Amino acid sequence: MTHIVDDADHFAEQALAGFCDVHGRLVRPVTGGVVRATATPENKVALVIGGGSGHYPVFNGYVGPGLGDAAVAGDVFASPATRLIANVARKAHRGGGVVLCFGNYAGDVLNFGFAAERLRADGIDTRVVPVTDDVVSAPRGQEARRRGVAGDVMVLKVAGAAAEAGLGLDEVERLARHANDRTRSFGVAFGGCTLPGADGPLFTVPEGRMAIGLGIHGEPGIDEQPTASAAELGALLVRRLLEDAPDGATGGRVAVLLNGLGGTKYEELFVLWTHVASALRGAGLALVAPLVGEYVTSLDMEGCSLTICWLDEELERFWLAPCDSPALRIGTVSEAGPAAPLPPDDAEAGNRWTEAPAPSREAGAGIARALDALATALRGAEEELGRIDALAGDGDHGQGMTRGAAAAAAGAREAAGAGAGAASVLAAAADSWADRAGGTSGAIWGLGLRSAAGALSDERAPDAAAVAAAARAAIENVMRLGGAKPGDKTLVDAFEPFARVLSGALDAGTPLSEAWSRASEAAHAAAEGTKDLLPQLGRARNHAERSRGHRDAGAVSFALAARTVGEFVR
Amino acid sequence: MTHIVDDADHFAEQALAGFCDVHGRLVRPVTGGVVRATATPENKVALVIGGGSGHYPVFNGYVGPGLGDAAVAGDVFASPATRLIANVARKAHRGGGVVLCFGNYAGDVLNFGFAAERLRADGIDTRVVPVTDDVVSAPRGQEARRRGVAGDVMVLKVAGAAAEAGLGLDEVERLARHANDRTRSFGVAFGGCTLPGADGPLFTVPEGRMAIGLGIHGEPGIDEQPTASAAELGALLVRRLLEDAPDGATGGRVAVLLNGLGGTKYEELFVLWTHVASALRGAGLALVAPLVGEYVTSLDMEGCSLTICWLDEELERFWLAPCDSPALRIGTVSEAGPAAPLPPDDAEAGNRWTEAPAPSREAGAGIARALDALATALRGAEEELGRIDALAGDGDHGQGMTRGAAAAAAGAREAAGAGAGAASVLAAAADSWADRAGGTSGAIWGLGLRSAAGALSDERAPDAAAVAAAARAAIENVMRLGGAKPGDKTLVDAFEPFARVLSGALDAGTPLSEAWSRASEAAHAAAEGTKDLLPQLGRARNHAERSRGHRDAGAVSFALAARTVGEFVR
Repeated sequence: MTHIVDDADHFAEQALAGFCDVHGRLVRPVTGGVVRATATPENKVALVIGGGSGHYPVFNGYVGPGLGDAAVAGDVFASPATRLIANVARKAHRGGGVVLCFGNYAGDVLNFGFAAERLRADGIDTRVVPVTDDVVSAPRGQEARRRGVAGDVMVLKVAGAAAEAGLGLDEVERLARHANDRTRSFGVAFGGCTLPGADGPLFTVPEGRMAIGLGIHGEPGIDEQPTASAAELGALLVRRLLEDAPDGATGGRVAVLLNGLGGTKYEELFVLWTHVASALRGAGLALVAPLVGEYVTSLDMEGCSLTICWLDEELERFWLAPCDSPALRIGTVSEAGPAAPLPPDDAEAGNRWTEAPAPSREAGAGIARALDALATALRGAEEELGRIDALAGDGDHGQGMTRGAAAAAAGAREAAGAGAGAASVLAAAADSWADRAGGTSGAIWGLGLRSAAGALSDERAPDAAAVAAAARAAIENVMRLGGAKPGDKTLVDAFEPFARVLSGALDAGTPLSEAWSRASEAAHAAAEGTKDLLPQLGRARNHAERSRGHRDAGAVSFALAARTVGEFVR
Repeated sequence: MTHIVDDADHFAEQALAGFCDVHGRLVRPVTGGVVRATATPENKVALVIGGGSGHYPVFNGYVGPGLGDAAVAGDVFASPATRLIANVARKAHRGGGVVLCFGNYAGDVLNFGFAAERLRADGIDTRVVPVTDDVVSAPRGQEARRRGVAGDVMVLKVAGAAAEAGLGLDEVERLARHANDRTRSFGVAFGGCTLPGADGPLFTVPEGRMAIGLGIHGEPGIDEQPTASAAELGALLVRRLLEDAPDGATGGRVAVLLNGLGGTKYEELFVLWTHVASALRGAGLALVAPLVGEYVTSLDMEGCSLTICWLDEELERFWLAPCDSPALRIGTVSEAGPAAPLPPDDAEAGNRWTEAPAPSREAGAGIARALDALATALRGAEEELGRIDALAGDGDHGQGMTRGAAAAAAGAREAAGAGAGAASVLAAAADSWADRAGGTSGAIWGLGLRSAAGALSDERAPDAAAVAAAARAAIENVMRLGGAKPGDKTLVDAFEPFARVLSGALDAGTPLSEAWSRASEAAHAAAEGTKDLLPQLGRARNHAERSRGHRDAGAVSFALAARTVGEFVR
């Protein structure tokens, strides 16, 4: 349970403020996260880490010399918004480029990927390195689809040390990817974690059983079995990882992390370590500076995971390099003085609009009205969408969409009220949606609307060509950055036919309202058709099983949105 | 729950082995605990900390330069045996004397106190400093009766830094006591902890309620109230401590520890910190290097505590001094090389006996037979003793006595089998009892029997004078080191009249068997009379309430023992 809370909606934000107060020697708060408080050399590569909150010390506990330059913090278990990632990275950038490092989850891939594009557009060379260490989340040969769990620590330790040593952006990126390629994790859970403000745990494990391969947000595992003795559990963890040893990892020296997920006692981890250590040594491996403790938690989840990084000479050097951060100190880092004051937040956070010419201004007002109607429609469908989502996911889709659309409508209204043009109104809606909705749907809608806004203008009302270009840009970016294709049982299943029919009809000279109407019907038909699809994307097996025969909530809500907005299209 | 366990009886021992394997740079295992693995200067004062296990990082996590020289580890929530404390301290001693620092609990006071006497007898100047920071466990003016909780961290940090700075034994003891005098803690619990091997938690807190002032072993608190918001909880913690500020603490600078008990999320602590920090600053206090995290746990207990140490110039210097240990690093400690190899365990651990003359040997065999009978009798009474104990305590008295007596009988049998005399057989029984029984009863019985053994001889059979002297020595040491008087509702209520009647009758020339019989009856009558007593000793209020009208389990088992052994007295 979460017992210490004022307001569940601001729990993560408040925890971050408390953390910054305690660790002011090492970190200072910025909008969206923290950056180092200690001086950092000009032109050093900036390692920016981040993801959802609720995993302390991941990520903010690992900011400091020899580790991260900054950490972005989303809401509990929710990806931070694109805008916040870009803001934190700009603050951390010292002229040497940026490496964005995060766990491989759909929302984070979207938000960090889109943030990287925005940073590059500003002239900041930016690389993205998703961590993919969890062996149960996709089979061998599909390692890139695996999710990131405690292996974050190995990757950010190596990348942080490489950046601190003054290596260039290509090298830091290469080493981060190399560490990730050599890292494998496997975990078990004995009991669920409870989100702040929730009445009960996110999931439960029956008494006397353990969930095998469960994710750090309660994603389904691959199996469940009776609780084992410490000896049996140690053998299981080691066996499962050694079976999955990366190709070419032959040196016999490994970095090891035996991680507690929050509710498991330190003493239990030490008991388990006796078996893990002897099994690894029995397999001929030398254990280099092993870590045993709480390094990547999942709120108060009971459980543990084992992570192994197969070292070579360069990985071992960076694994052992000194570092200093709130949660991890190794060796001795020479004391750096305090950093220079930070530049102010970037302009886009300020939402300043200039008054647009009347046609574009009127189009902007129309967009705002359409989004109001969308927010109302989604609020009406919230429960139904939640029910559909709960069949295969965590059931929060309706809530996320309602919150996102309401925020988007408010953002659009504010921009339209200030006389902004169509492009700016839609961009304001996009950023508000992404900031407030959280989760994957928030990231996708923010990205899609932002991409569409880029095809509009603040000078003119959008014509048929602009609307077609907006639809194409949106679906193109959502598919490229989100990595989903039609048939993967995501909103793309409805969005892709919508965009294809809309832009095709407009190109053929069909009037806008007629083209939109046809596109909406195509989206509806496709959403219904997701019943018969099996998801192909890197999700756990149980998810695929459970989603058979059910519509995808993201596709359904997209179709609803297309139809609702259609009323405003003339 | 405890999910990772092989054998609950060896859980603490196995956890310690795992801990030593991970942290071999800083600590190495010895019988009974750990000592530093890093070189320590000759003649440095040795700070030896310890107590029951289950509180990681307390105590073994705080061994290293600038902190403890060694830590003694008892079973989970049970005091380490006298013999083990003495062994660990001998290993840590560098010629400068020893400070034994531990939380103020009956079993620890007995065992550390008796160990100090044994060390002094060996020529090692030894001081004992019990930590007494928990404001709810005794009122103002009776601070010395308070139990030790998270304030351990403040006291051992200051004492460790003072010892590292090369201060002498008097000064290190003075500073440890001074830090303790300036330190106050107050805690709340939301949920109980589960002992390894147990089916359910040691205690529970009703859903939506919190226990105020609960101890770190589940000792009763002073109140229960509905769960508060983080803001209200922060205000409560701060108010309760500021009300109890020590006299003469006026500097306005404080060391602060906001501690999680194991099952409370890091994020919750950071949320709470925002309120604690602002309330303290609002009271005009400057917060010096505050700590927020899990520093003194209670297995997986949900809850937290706040500790304040009112600093003066010397306390602040030692609070901020560098240290390096598995769980706490501050500043930079210059790298010490590895320590020299350790001397072998002391002889008494080896249990080597020489054959005694026949009369003493025969008396030794008689003692062993009597202890066999005692073990049988206690096994028969185990459930009944547990039931009596559960009315006011944790219900483990019967189990502890059965385990202790069985071990004592086995130890005595082994010594007698090797031809040892009366004194050695009884000493072997004492040490076995203390080693295996755990808890306060184990400490008292070990101490009583060891004290009695000191009045016997390996040359002669014990005569009336020796038996009288043994009884006097035993009750004198138990009362002096245990701090209990008749009327405190402990075993002393039965033991004191037993020893008084026995030695008085023997002094008056009464035959031994008749004297013993009268003494036994006095013990029985007194044990029955504990129904009408109210405990005076430093225990929480609820305990006093609950024990009204019930016999004391320790007094009852003492009376049973006296009668059982009487059958063998001729």
